[in-house]
Amino acid sequence: MRAVDVLKRKKLGQELSSEEIRFLIDGLTRGEIPRYQLSAFLMAVYFRGMTDEETAALTEAMLRSGVVLDFSDLHGPKVDKHSTGGVGDKTSLVIAPLAASAGLFVPMITGRGLGHSGGTLDKLQSIPGFDVHLDEHAFRRVVSTVGAAIIGQTKTIAPADRKLYALRDVTSTIESLPLITGSILSKKLAEGISGLVLDVKVGSGAFMKTREEATALARLLLVTAGTMGTRTVALLTDMSQPLGAQVGNASEVEEAIAALKGEGPDDLTRLSLQLTAHMLVVGGLYRTLEEAIRRAEEELRSGRGLEKFLEIVKAQGGNPSVVDGTGLARARSSKAVRAQRDGFVTAIETEGVGTAAMLLGAGRERVEDAIDPGAGLVVHNKIGDEVKRGDPLVTLQYNDGRARVADAERRIVQSYTISEEAPNERPELLIEILEQNDRERTT
Amino acid sequence: MRAVDVLKRKKLGQELSSEEIRFLIDGLTRGEIPRYQLSAFLMAVYFRGMTDEETAALTEAMLRSGVVLDFSDLHGPKVDKHSTGGVGDKTSLVIAPLAASAGLFVPMITGRGLGHSGGTLDKLQSIPGFDVHLDEHAFRRVVSTVGAAIIGQTKTIAPADRKLYALRDVTSTIESLPLITGSILSKKLAEGISGLVLDVKVGSGAFMKTREEATALARLLLVTAGTMGTRTVALLTDMSQPLGAQVGNASEVEEAIAALKGEGPDDLTRLSLQLTAHMLVVGGLYRTLEEAIRRAEEELRSGRGLEKFLEIVKAQGGNPSVVDGTGLARARSSKAVRAQRDGFVTAIETEGVGTAAMLLGAGRERVEDAIDPGAGLVVHNKIGDEVKRGDPLVTLQYNDGRARVADAERRIVQSYTISEEAPNERPELLIEILEQNDRERTT
Repeated sequence: MRAVDVLKRKKLGQELSSEEIRFLIDGLTRGEIPRYQLSAFLMAVYFRGMTDEETAALTEAMLRSGVVLDFSDLHGPKVDKHSTGGVGDKTSLVIAPLAASAGLFVPMITGRGLGHSGGTLDKLQSIPGFDVHLDEHAFRRVVSTVGAAIIGQTKTIAPADRKLYALRDVTSTIESLPLITGSILSKKLAEGISGLVLDVKVGSGAFMKTREEATALARLLLVTAGTMGTRTVALLTDMSQPLGAQVGNASEVEEAIAALKGEGPDDLTRLSLQLTAHMLVVGGLYRTLEEAIRRAEEELRSGRGLEKFLEIVKAQGGNPSVVDGTGLARARSSKAVRAQRDGFVTAIETEGVGTAAMLLGAGRERVEDAIDPGAGLVVHNKIGDEVKRGDPLVTLQYNDGRARVADAERRIVQSYTISEEAPNERPELLIEILEQNDRERTT
Repeated sequence: MRAVDVLKRKKLGQELSSEEIRFLIDGLTRGEIPRYQLSAFLMAVYFRGMTDEETAALTEAMLRSGVVLDFSDLHGPKVDKHSTGGVGDKTSLVIAPLAASAGLFVPMITGRGLGHSGGTLDKLQSIPGFDVHLDEHAFRRVVSTVGAAIIGQTKTIAPADRKLYALRDVTSTIESLPLITGSILSKKLAEGISGLVLDVKVGSGAFMKTREEATALARLLLVTAGTMGTRTVALLTDMSQPLGAQVGNASEVEEAIAALKGEGPDDLTRLSLQLTAHMLVVGGLYRTLEEAIRRAEEELRSGRGLEKFLEIVKAQGGNPSVVDGTGLARARSSKAVRAQRDGFVTAIETEGVGTAAMLLGAGRERVEDAIDPGAGLVVHNKIGDEVKRGDPLVTLQYNDGRARVADAERRIVQSYTISEEAPNERPELLIEILEQNDRERTT
């Protein structure tokens, strides 16, 4: 088999066999096929797409390029959640302990933030001492004893994804549904899970700006995970405005802890309970969503979720006093960005809000940038809220030095649309639930 | 400027500026932009194409990547001819001497054969002693004293083309009109010529199988050369059957010499006179094609063309006795491939005929393969000819050893279509003449 022939077939729009796709991915992983052939292949995939069978073969080849964890010795379902990323999305920090305290094993391997979008790993690292780089042995120990652990990508999991992603990044081939699907699922399925809940974000702060795009991605993820034998459900959820009030790292941990105490913002709490409940159903602990939601609520109300969070923090070396509100970084300076007119918030360009937080130091422009854990912003008004001229829309929190405060302020002003008329309705948090086997039902 | 941003714009179908294209080509030439970005760019160009302005910018950037010869000290027009390649096409060997003896300077830089298609350079190298690797100084001396010289690509001319072509070859991006145009014209215009005649082959033995494809390529070549200030005409000519009777290297030199003696096959002679006459018009020596054809015929009839051929051979170190029929390699073995039924030749899969010659040793499967100068084949019948069962269609000529005679024979049998009914007409050798400035006229 020659790479150029496989490339030619993809270029002409012909369907590749599993062997051809594996040949390319293995060749990349082993350094036997040069990157200039793979990058041309990626561009051909951008234009020609992939069939469901090709996408499954790609995912499988990427998954098999590295270690696949095996938790089959643990008695109980292993389930994870993956979000396509947004602004203020700290649900993982709430869900992992709730799901674990309800009886699931949650071996969560997660990523860093880039651009306007935050990353669970960065948030956890604002907890003093919290170790996100457990080796496979330690990860397994925490999952088996506590029920959940949250770590960063390891070198042994899906090495093909790292190589492919690096190529996609420099060849403008990130936006391709089969390539996105392969990247997400090869890493998630390497966790050795039997069930997966996908939180596919839609709107101005999401990667997928429209419901059509998000549905297409969700469908491909469901079909591909199904082919790989993993029971999966996808929730399309709203990202037309930030989730919760806090956008940052230490402040998002604080808000997640508040949610676990029953004192979190309504949208964060509701979404966390929904996602946890779907994990319980996908894991087979409950047959109906209603029962599962009641169980998730019970884990929250009883304080067992907060207790589990504390266990995870301790098991991964973090300072447990964070649950009492001490030990988390705080920014020294703050500045309110105020409404410039009376009216109603009718739209938020949420990517701009995320970018503003990044400019303050809460995120990265480039992968090598460092994070300021105390920097971020607080969102005071959401879509539908009435504001008076001079009311604070957002409070910027930053440490002087590298924070680009003026830029961030300008981004916030540009991101808020304030109109005379109230919008007809506020955004629905939960847009749609998509299931495998083509059965789809709308909430 | 970042390569990934330029790539993204091409991927989205936006028109690139000259600066952006030069940035990529210069970056490739200097090794500052990695090949994996260029190869993704090439694939994006395959799918999105290029505007005429982009194609001109690409050609210019490739041309400027190396040395551009300057023959402005020679008093007289400098004109060359380029063929897109075919089977049995030895016109360059006839045209260069005819045009030079009629008063043009012909600084011809030419290529090797690959696959089914022969190369002028390989043919010349079957003349004992003929040096196709003159340095720039010697090339200039032969052109200025003899009027014509024929050499191979040098390292200093259009280095970007060599790098791009190598990438296109391994990424299945050869078939792209703007990339083909940039490759052809960057090398030809580096010869320092003011006029160019393009022989764009159409048919089963050509790169372009249909008149539509050939017309599209010819049009883009004309427009691009025009933008670069080079007066150019394109002839669409038939390649639905081999040109002349000989397909090989030494045997093609022999046939070209026969044509210069007035004893060549009719199609080769007519096409050579047409192309030479167009060179004389493009060079400004004649205003009408009729006058120019009379002059070309006169150069042939008088023997001055043959005399000029001898001068070129001598000036480049070749053995002049080849014009007397000695010194050229001959194959030791031969075998006739015979008609398997009575009827008329109605079609020839000419690429198959070229491939058969290659299998005998007359061509290369890979660029690193060596040529057997004596190997080749003789075509006895053309489209429209009546044949009886047992008549020889083609005679294979080869030296035992690496010649794949059985494979070659099979290819010839598969390539000839013999039907009961005669075809309605024989192929027209000269299909169309395309000129610059959108003025097109059909012969």
